[in-house]
Amino acid sequence: MLTRIDHIGIACFDLDKTVDFYRATYGFEVCHSEINEEQGVREAMLKINETSDGGASYLQLLEPIREDSAVGKWLAKNGEGVHHIAFGTADVDGDAQAVRDKGVRVLYDEPRTGSMGSRITFLHPKDCHGVLTELVTAASPTATDH
Amino acid sequence: MLTRIDHIGIACFDLDKTVDFYRATYGFEVCHSEINEEQGVREAMLKINETSDGGASYLQLLEPIREDSAVGKWLAKNGEGVHHIAFGTADVDGDAQAVRDKGVRVLYDEPRTGSMGSRITFLHPKDCHGVLTELVTAASPTATDH
Repeated sequence: MLTRIDHIGIACFDLDKTVDFYRATYGFEVCHSEINEEQGVREAMLKINETSDGGASYLQLLEPIREDSAVGKWLAKNGEGVHHIAFGTADVDGDAQAVRDKGVRVLYDEPRTGSMGSRITFLHPKDCHGVLTELVTAASPTATDH
Repeated sequence: MLTRIDHIGIACFDLDKTVDFYRATYGFEVCHSEINEEQGVREAMLKINETSDGGASYLQLLEPIREDSAVGKWLAKNGEGVHHIAFGTADVDGDAQAVRDKGVRVLYDEPRTGSMGSRITFLHPKDCHGVLTELVTAASPTATDH
């Protein structure tokens, strides 16, 4: 069961400048940053609020580290903007199977590693009214660097 | 101060079909629907979780009622997908002025009426790394139809 908006994934050309924008404009701070080699991105997580399921909602700022990564190709086509949205669940495996059984294409056979040790999968945007949709189970409900 | 992800605004061609998709696929239910003549949209709000500031996070599904509405023009250009993101605040007037003072273009001189009697304004996406960004103060922190 999907119990929260876990994050909004935003693709950008320059992660440091975009982090500076969110800090200077709204006071949002980075709570975690990492490089995800498999996804081909450098990313920063900005925690916005906690959620009623014991998790949290984040902005996830994404800069591609390779032009041929999914985010790199998306940016080249679309320019900066919202790349995907993510719903949090305690059971990404079960929920991925449940949506697959309903005819929605799930992009990975098995969940992969996302931000902060989470397990993630993506649903095909053409099956989701144009929205690239991620399902995510956090490593722990409130995992952050600090 | 912005204290939550209030909603993700998703533009669609057929509101009823898109509501059906979110209900059938994830079990999300409509908690409120309305027509906003000024914005030129018919919309449905799907509450996903409550937030640590006493508010909630929603998906806002938007179907244009006029081709020349902002959402109608956006859909004709981009197809279905994420149209905007919205941050919740107790003081949309003060926060709009604060970001204006930092050089971010605010699209309305004064906040207008949004979903469920909220007061809203938008920030220019070109000043926000490609993200059309809404600031919203709810009519009451937990306002819903039921």
